[in-house]
Order: sequence, then C-alpha cells, then structure tokens
Amino acid sequence: MITSSANARVKQIIQWQSKAKERRKAKVFLAEGIKMFEEAPEERILEVYLSQEMEAKIKGTFNEGHEIKEKLKRTGYEVVASELFVKMSDTQTPQGILTVLKQPEYELEEMLSCENPLLVVLENLQDPGNLGTILRTGEGAGITGVIMSNNTVDIFNPKTIRATMGSIYRVPFLYVEDLKATLQKLQEHGIHTYAAHLEGEQYYDGVSFCEPTAFIIGNEGNGLTRDIADKADSYLKIPMEGQVESLNAAVATALLMYEAHRQRNIGK
Amino acid sequence: MITSSANARVKQIIQWQSKAKERRKAKVFLAEGIKMFEEAPEERILEVYLSQEMEAKIKGTFNEGHEIKEKLKRTGYEVVASELFVKMSDTQTPQGILTVLKQPEYELEEMLSCENPLLVVLENLQDPGNLGTILRTGEGAGITGVIMSNNTVDIFNPKTIRATMGSIYRVPFLYVEDLKATLQKLQEHGIHTYAAHLEGEQYYDGVSFCEPTAFIIGNEGNGLTRDIADKADSYLKIPMEGQVESLNAAVATALLMYEAHRQRNIGK
Repeated sequence: MITSSANARVKQIIQWQSKAKERRKAKVFLAEGIKMFEEAPEERILEVYLSQEMEAKIKGTFNEGHEIKEKLKRTGYEVVASELFVKMSDTQTPQGILTVLKQPEYELEEMLSCENPLLVVLENLQDPGNLGTILRTGEGAGITGVIMSNNTVDIFNPKTIRATMGSIYRVPFLYVEDLKATLQKLQEHGIHTYAAHLEGEQYYDGVSFCEPTAFIIGNEGNGLTRDIADKADSYLKIPMEGQVESLNAAVATALLMYEAHRQRNIGK
Repeated sequence: MITSSANARVKQIIQWQSKAKERRKAKVFLAEGIKMFEEAPEERILEVYLSQEMEAKIKGTFNEGHEIKEKLKRTGYEVVASELFVKMSDTQTPQGILTVLKQPEYELEEMLSCENPLLVVLENLQDPGNLGTILRTGEGAGITGVIMSNNTVDIFNPKTIRATMGSIYRVPFLYVEDLKATLQKLQEHGIHTYAAHLEGEQYYDGVSFCEPTAFIIGNEGNGLTRDIADKADSYLKIPMEGQVESLNAAVATALLMYEAHRQRNIGK
C-alpha cells in the first residue's frame, strides 16, 4: 500500500490532475469514480488506484466473479491510504477509485468518412463543464464527432471528464490547428456547416439536418470570431423570448443536436 | 470611500455572499457585474458598491446622461478600495460593481392564473449552475414560472444568480414546503404534469404541450423520488443513443421547454 505523499507515482498523479501540459506530454488522462472505471475501454487503462477504504468496500460488497472485481484482476491496481487518496483526487469527496488512461487519438479522415456525419465544431470554448456536457449530450443525440480549435479548453481536464459521464470514451474528438482550413475540408466533403449566430435568419427548427451536418459553436462570452462565422455555409438562430440575448453554450448545442436527432429519427 | 475590511457593511456583504441563511433573514440577494446592475429592477435595489477602479472607469468611459450613470445617480452608491472589493466579490476577477437587492416574492396563485401556464417544477436540484441555466433558458423558451421543492439549492446563491444572466429578475419562482400538494393544485387548475423519467413510454417530441403544462425534473444524481414521480400525470422520455443513461438536468429541461416553445409557436 502507498502511504507516503513523497511517492513518485502519487506526485505524478497530482501533477496530471492539475496540468494539461503534463498530461499532454505523457499522453494520459485521469478518470475518477466507479462508473468511469467500469466503462473505461480496457486496452486504454494504464494504472488503477484504489483507496484503502474502497478496496475493503469492493471486497466486502461484490461477489467473486463480479464484473468490477474481474476487471480489477485483469488491470491490476495499487492501494493508497485513504487520507493520501484525497490528495490525489480532484474532487472534495472522492469515490476512491482513479483510473489512468492513454489519451485516444482520432483522425479527421475517420470523422469525414463515417456515414452521414453529424459533427459539432467548437471555437475557443472555455468552460470545462460545458465541454463535458456537450460530449455527454452529443453521444445521446447520436453525433459522430467533435472538432475543437486549439484554444478550446483541454478535453482531458478532470472537470470535463467528470461532466462527460463516460462519453469521453465513446465520442470521437479532435483538436485542430487551423479551424478555418478544417471547415473548408468539411465543406469539400459535402458537409453543410451551420453557425449558431445571433445574425441568423433561419430558425434552427425550420432547417433540415438530414444531410451531412456540422454545427459551429463559439466562445461562451464572445461567440464566434468573424473569420469563422464568415466561413460557415449558413447561420442559424434559436428563438429567445423575454430579454434573453444568448443561451448557455452547452444548452444551445444540445438544442441543435437534438433537433438533428429528431429529424433524422436516429434509433427509432 | 470604504477602505477597511472591519467596515460593518463590508462584513455584511461577505456574509451574504456565502450564507443562504443570512440572505434569507435579511431578504436580500447580491448580483455582480455591470449587466446585472443595468437589468436590475430599480425598485428592488437596496445598495450599490463600486470598486474605486470601476468608479474611475465609469466616469472616464460614459458620457453625461448615459443610462448607467443616470441609474447610479438615482440609486446612489458606495465606493470601495479595489483590493477590498475583491474580498467582497464572489468571483476571482470581479467586475467591480455589486448590487444588493430585495428578494422578490411570488405567489402560487399568480403562477396558476396566468394565461396558458408553462411551468418547470424542480425536486431537490443541487447544482447552482444548473438552476441558473434553467432560469436563463426558461426565459428564452417563454416559461411562466419555476416551482422548487424546499430542498432545492438556494436560487440566490451567487453562482445561480450569475448563471441566470439576468433572468432572475424576470422569471417568477417559488419554493414550496409540500411539493406533492402543490402538484395536486396544479392538476386541479387543469395543468398537465409531465415527469422526465427513464420509465417514460412517450418521447417528449411526440406529445402536445400546447395546453397548460408543467415539467417535473428531479435531482441530478438520483432523479425524482417515487412519491413525486407517482403524482405526475404522465412520464416523458428523451431518446438517448450510445451508452448514455441520462442527460444533464439543465440540458434535459432545456429540451422539454424548447419543445413546448416550438409547438406553441411563441413569438412567431
């Protein structure tokens, strides 16, 4: 059992929790909680840490042969003194299980070649919770991928991972250096690019998204840059009553994605 | 100018920022930022605080007769040393203007007697950001009010106020002791009550919300209690692809409210 905060692996985890740069260098990310361990693709798991309390709980609660017990046997794990585990955790009341995973790498080509793409393109989104919620809702709505400008918040931020509720494992995503050039590529592949924009003339629920579609969403405070907005094929507006000037970025994206879902009749 | 952290009003503000109980006792809430001051109903404003920096900025930026300058003249304000203002603020990078307002009080009767009610009922929602986002989206979708169980997070929490982006001033809301009895009242007034529930048999976009409607939303982690779910007239489900088991509470509420908006053609 690990009991010292001087332990090199503990120090490493604490760094990975707070520093995007260190995660990027090691090409890893952390996922906390039992659900996140359960849903983690086994081939991506590098390390698993259990608090002493959690180990006892798993031993006491689950029968032999239980899926989680079996998975832990296959992946192996390290036990950490409970008070030390709190320091390794990003949450105030840790669930007692932390998984270290290899960052997945997706290619733009895969996203373009899937059947009838439904993509979300994010420019400079800054709130980790919003990004995680977009992934979670996006999986629910059946999107085929998320493309982000390089200045978008790190998708491996612990708050984002938590907000995805596991969708981080399943929704393909990609950071791109040159978002404008990427939009050009989408267009060349026959994907219609729609910007959520206050100057939109068409209501989002009056447009068909049954053909290959990408929704472009801008920064929470400032919206899309002129450059990216100009590149979009069309603008969409979401009707707003009262004195509301804009919607939360995750909410606006959800409305667009679920409108596409409704029209495409996915899963029905 | 206030310069000492021992100042009684400064101490009072700091308490109101962090303690729901103190806010309730004094029947006040705090709103930070220039937009929140601009949109604040003047008859509710009790006090305004400007950081020294902000006062200089307002004097330097706005012409005589500017709406904000005129409003500040009418309400009056106190200037606070900038480093002290940081302590009074709930944010890490304060905007330099803080408004103290009287808490509004709405009656259930008003909510029931409005034309074609579109209500949101929240049971034990815990995330202040979610609650604020629901108010903001709700105003956008044209809802007529929000009813909350007593164990729902405090709507005057600074994080909630911020997330409402001003909708706190305009959307009627109410905490109730006995949520079940309140649902009974809604039903007696001819309001159809729909619970967002995993056991729902009808998709949300296959039901008409053109008649008086209330959507009931449960706690983020646990959903609705059996007691409240049993009381609802019908269950609704939101389709979810992949392995998604539920959506974020603010996102789910947004989809329902905007579906009602779409059907009712509000504002078109």
